[in-house]
Amino acid sequence: MEILQQHRVHGGTLSYCRHDSAATGGAMRFSIFLPPGAGPHPLLVWLSGLTCTEENFTTKAGAYGAAAAVGLAVLAPDTSPRGEGVADDPAYDLGQGAGFYVDATQAPWAPHFRMETYVTRDLLAAIEAAFPLDPARRGISGHSMGGHGALTLALRHPDLFRSVSAFAPIVSPTRCPWGEKAFSAYLGEDRAAWAQHDASLLIAGGAANGHYDDILIDQGTADSFLEGQLKPQLFAQACADAGQKLTLRLQEGYDHSYFFMASFIADHIDWHARRLKTA
Amino acid sequence: MEILQQHRVHGGTLSYCRHDSAATGGAMRFSIFLPPGAGPHPLLVWLSGLTCTEENFTTKAGAYGAAAAVGLAVLAPDTSPRGEGVADDPAYDLGQGAGFYVDATQAPWAPHFRMETYVTRDLLAAIEAAFPLDPARRGISGHSMGGHGALTLALRHPDLFRSVSAFAPIVSPTRCPWGEKAFSAYLGEDRAAWAQHDASLLIAGGAANGHYDDILIDQGTADSFLEGQLKPQLFAQACADAGQKLTLRLQEGYDHSYFFMASFIADHIDWHARRLKTA
Repeated sequence: MEILQQHRVHGGTLSYCRHDSAATGGAMRFSIFLPPGAGPHPLLVWLSGLTCTEENFTTKAGAYGAAAAVGLAVLAPDTSPRGEGVADDPAYDLGQGAGFYVDATQAPWAPHFRMETYVTRDLLAAIEAAFPLDPARRGISGHSMGGHGALTLALRHPDLFRSVSAFAPIVSPTRCPWGEKAFSAYLGEDRAAWAQHDASLLIAGGAANGHYDDILIDQGTADSFLEGQLKPQLFAQACADAGQKLTLRLQEGYDHSYFFMASFIADHIDWHARRLKTA
Repeated sequence: MEILQQHRVHGGTLSYCRHDSAATGGAMRFSIFLPPGAGPHPLLVWLSGLTCTEENFTTKAGAYGAAAAVGLAVLAPDTSPRGEGVADDPAYDLGQGAGFYVDATQAPWAPHFRMETYVTRDLLAAIEAAFPLDPARRGISGHSMGGHGALTLALRHPDLFRSVSAFAPIVSPTRCPWGEKAFSAYLGEDRAAWAQHDASLLIAGGAANGHYDDILIDQGTADSFLEGQLKPQLFAQACADAGQKLTLRLQEGYDHSYFFMASFIADHIDWHARRLKTA
């Protein structure tokens, strides 16, 4: 692992890093914030949305003051493999910058677009070998496509995470244009495979199984993607039917931007810290 | 004035705007955050550094949570005139993105590069006509070149401002390469004209005159520009000699980036709020 840049921020240390991933077959970038103190620290994994790199959340979310205050490390990976040998698409919502946190099974995506295995296996192993982190205390969150990633990875890998939240997540990619396009490309036309990566269908299928005491979702009411892509009511209904507690907060007048996330990130940091700092 | 974008953030409203300035002879952009409530609000004017637009501080400083908490509006203008008819230079530290908050007297800069008059006259007039702000309660701050701008505009226009602070400011542009280059270009070779825009020389010349009870400067000790360009000791010596109180905080391990500003911006917001919310 190579540390590309380091900055002191809020008394902790922010590092931009590059490492090689077997899952994606190439170099990947991420940022990691370590709070003050020796650790081992609990960790919040943050998954970003369409078009983002590791940079967007790191520079715009304003998360590190709150994270330093509660002693939480924060990891922000890139959203896809990248580079000349990696498949891409001219659209912003497919290919590089749009990995959707699944392992692609279809050409031309399959050899590199394996973001689920990358995040849950290679990335966690790499950072926990390099930094003073506590593997028993991890939470996961994210925004939009990354909110989908946070919910689905939390539900598919409950052994890895103890807390989960999301901002404006794509809660049912099998039932929105972004998800239908990406899943068709990455997973093919078999909708049974799609269902394994749809947070609402996973909840309906019993994936949560009491593992998470509660799930926090913030959604802005002025979000231009609310009706067409995000549809939080599908997740709320699935949680209600399955007996999964959900704290869904509709934030009046907020949009899909980082200004929305910056406004409530401290609440999410505290949400995870309360669950990861105890027991 | 045209509002280009609006976002809710931390319960307030952030607007990106464009308006025409007589001083610069063209369209200028800025962002302004209004805290919750009806106003009239006190205002913090933020001046950014080399290469920045109105966007950098707005997205990266994480200032609006603290500003909302104390009821402070925050204005962030661009750092120079821009556009095809505006002179420029290939270097990052001259021309567009590098206005240095002076009114240029030399060709080819003079017709447009009039950032002092732009900020202190056209911009304040425009925002105070359009938004519920209290013209009697303004503070000013900034970073690097913008820290120079904050200190010099505060000292040259004490009638406009009641509080002043800076992050890693260029405290004596007449004695550093950035300032010597810019002032030669914009003001010509007469160093008497330069001295009127050098914060340390203004203090030495008695410009502060008891107007500001104290001046806050944060400076990172790991800032790569500290020795060659910033030289806070020149300002500290001038303040000591002139009897101007200065709170100069050397922040161990912090660099010149927005991560440094994000770490201490809440202290600066509080510094200004304490001086602008009372009396």
